[in-house]
Amino acid sequence: MDSQTKSDNCLGWAARDPSGVLSPYTFSRRPLGSNDVSIKITHCGVCYADFIWSRNKHGDSMYPVVPGHEIAGVVKEVGSNVHRFKVGDPVGVGTYVNSCRDSPLLCAGITVYAPMMRHNMNQPGKSLGVIGLGGLGHMAVKFGKAFGLHVTVLSTSISKKDEALSLLGADNFVVSSDQEQMKGLSKSLDFIVDTASGDHPFDPYMSLLKIAGVYVLVGFPSEVKFSPASLNLGMRTISGSVTGGVKVIQEMIDFCAAHKVYPQIEVIPIQYANEALERLEKRDVKYRFVIDIENSLK
Amino acid sequence: MDSQTKSDNCLGWAARDPSGVLSPYTFSRRPLGSNDVSIKITHCGVCYADFIWSRNKHGDSMYPVVPGHEIAGVVKEVGSNVHRFKVGDPVGVGTYVNSCRDSPLLCAGITVYAPMMRHNMNQPGKSLGVIGLGGLGHMAVKFGKAFGLHVTVLSTSISKKDEALSLLGADNFVVSSDQEQMKGLSKSLDFIVDTASGDHPFDPYMSLLKIAGVYVLVGFPSEVKFSPASLNLGMRTISGSVTGGVKVIQEMIDFCAAHKVYPQIEVIPIQYANEALERLEKRDVKYRFVIDIENSLK
Repeated sequence: MDSQTKSDNCLGWAARDPSGVLSPYTFSRRPLGSNDVSIKITHCGVCYADFIWSRNKHGDSMYPVVPGHEIAGVVKEVGSNVHRFKVGDPVGVGTYVNSCRDSPLLCAGITVYAPMMRHNMNQPGKSLGVIGLGGLGHMAVKFGKAFGLHVTVLSTSISKKDEALSLLGADNFVVSSDQEQMKGLSKSLDFIVDTASGDHPFDPYMSLLKIAGVYVLVGFPSEVKFSPASLNLGMRTISGSVTGGVKVIQEMIDFCAAHKVYPQIEVIPIQYANEALERLEKRDVKYRFVIDIENSLK
Repeated sequence: MDSQTKSDNCLGWAARDPSGVLSPYTFSRRPLGSNDVSIKITHCGVCYADFIWSRNKHGDSMYPVVPGHEIAGVVKEVGSNVHRFKVGDPVGVGTYVNSCRDSPLLCAGITVYAPMMRHNMNQPGKSLGVIGLGGLGHMAVKFGKAFGLHVTVLSTSISKKDEALSLLGADNFVVSSDQEQMKGLSKSLDFIVDTASGDHPFDPYMSLLKIAGVYVLVGFPSEVKFSPASLNLGMRTISGSVTGGVKVIQEMIDFCAAHKVYPQIEVIPIQYANEALERLEKRDVKYRFVIDIENSLK
């Protein structure tokens, strides 16, 4: 049932080895099949997973790697068997939102929105802790405020305090190494969204949850380790998530349009991609790089 | 507001040091206060927690220790401020169930029943894995079958297979060290109740859960450790629990009476308590010791 037309050659930027250095790379895709959609990519957010894959941090990268998955674009061709979701053309973002500004919704956004909805974190007046203030964390703060929650940011760095409170609208900011501040938060939170990708202890954060509190993990530390007492004695829950399906993406896009929830981005040309990955490693981005593919990839 | 009547001296069996050896011990309780209830204990189940406290396994025992909390009995006197629950007199078990046979419901039973209900594990046709087949595990199997679930017992020992299937009514029995059997169960379970009190890996068991599966931990290993992928990639949840409140205890007792869900017990006199703790350590009990306090503690 595959289409017989030859696909065009594709242009991307690939890493060739675990140095992770990206450079232009030409490749061919298979002809459009009956279950395929051909999309012209206009924008692409830069996610920590792109850093992981480029540099083989999880040991399963296959080179050459063309990283990038937080994409927005315009549908060129649709296979005969493809179900057309309500989201329609252009796919995902064009109808409601700006494909440049909002491409991070398609990864950072949905990664926190989906578990927040699944665990009923949209109840006004409840309290939310957000661990880490990067691409995912800043969206969790924005969703939390739009849901009417009391939002506390938990960060290793005091340097993010002013922006967390003034720009993102968080209600409270706690430096997680400050034991006095942490003690003051003990058993006070209904929910926690943990977006930290580096290794960190879990017990100190779990102790901030009320009885029956819910802790959602969306980062990828090397392991999750805690005392059973942190879970059992407080009747608490830890749940994981990586993304969301088309239906909940549509809901999120509608919600963002209605509540003016936009990611904070720094738009860059593809030629800046290597520097962007280096800055991402240093957590030097507020809060998401978006590559302007349409105007810079030639 | 305390009553001015002097309390009687009490008789129990206490451990005096971390050897955990129990022997008769006389002590006084404070006079009955307005929020107190005085209960004559008739029966007491022997829980693994009693073993832990007697021998100071968690490092926080204060000697002398009179272990025992899985109690059934008869109300003698009620303080003026005590709210009388529907459960009435005699407390907990007398109205519906047999205080000897069913005292394990008040700890082993409620410890698995409460989280099973909280996580909607009572949906007929869904699949449940039960890790460990002791006091808690055998009750999880019985509740699972009464809820209409397909129940798989996961045990380190093949020796429990026949009874698990014939006596307790489990549908399937898997030796957890058998990698072929475990592989066959991959992503097949909706729920897991983990009652194992010893240390064990979590990733192999979590891999048995379907997408969005729920894993309830009621045991106390020394730590909980797993890969974030086990949680995140399957959108899975781990939740902890230790007991349940009066309302859900009442629900459980009603449910057990209606569905004839009874613990399997071995009734012993208090003079057998030390041997019982030794056999408990060796997992040599089917499936709960119950001390006949009424007829043996003099």
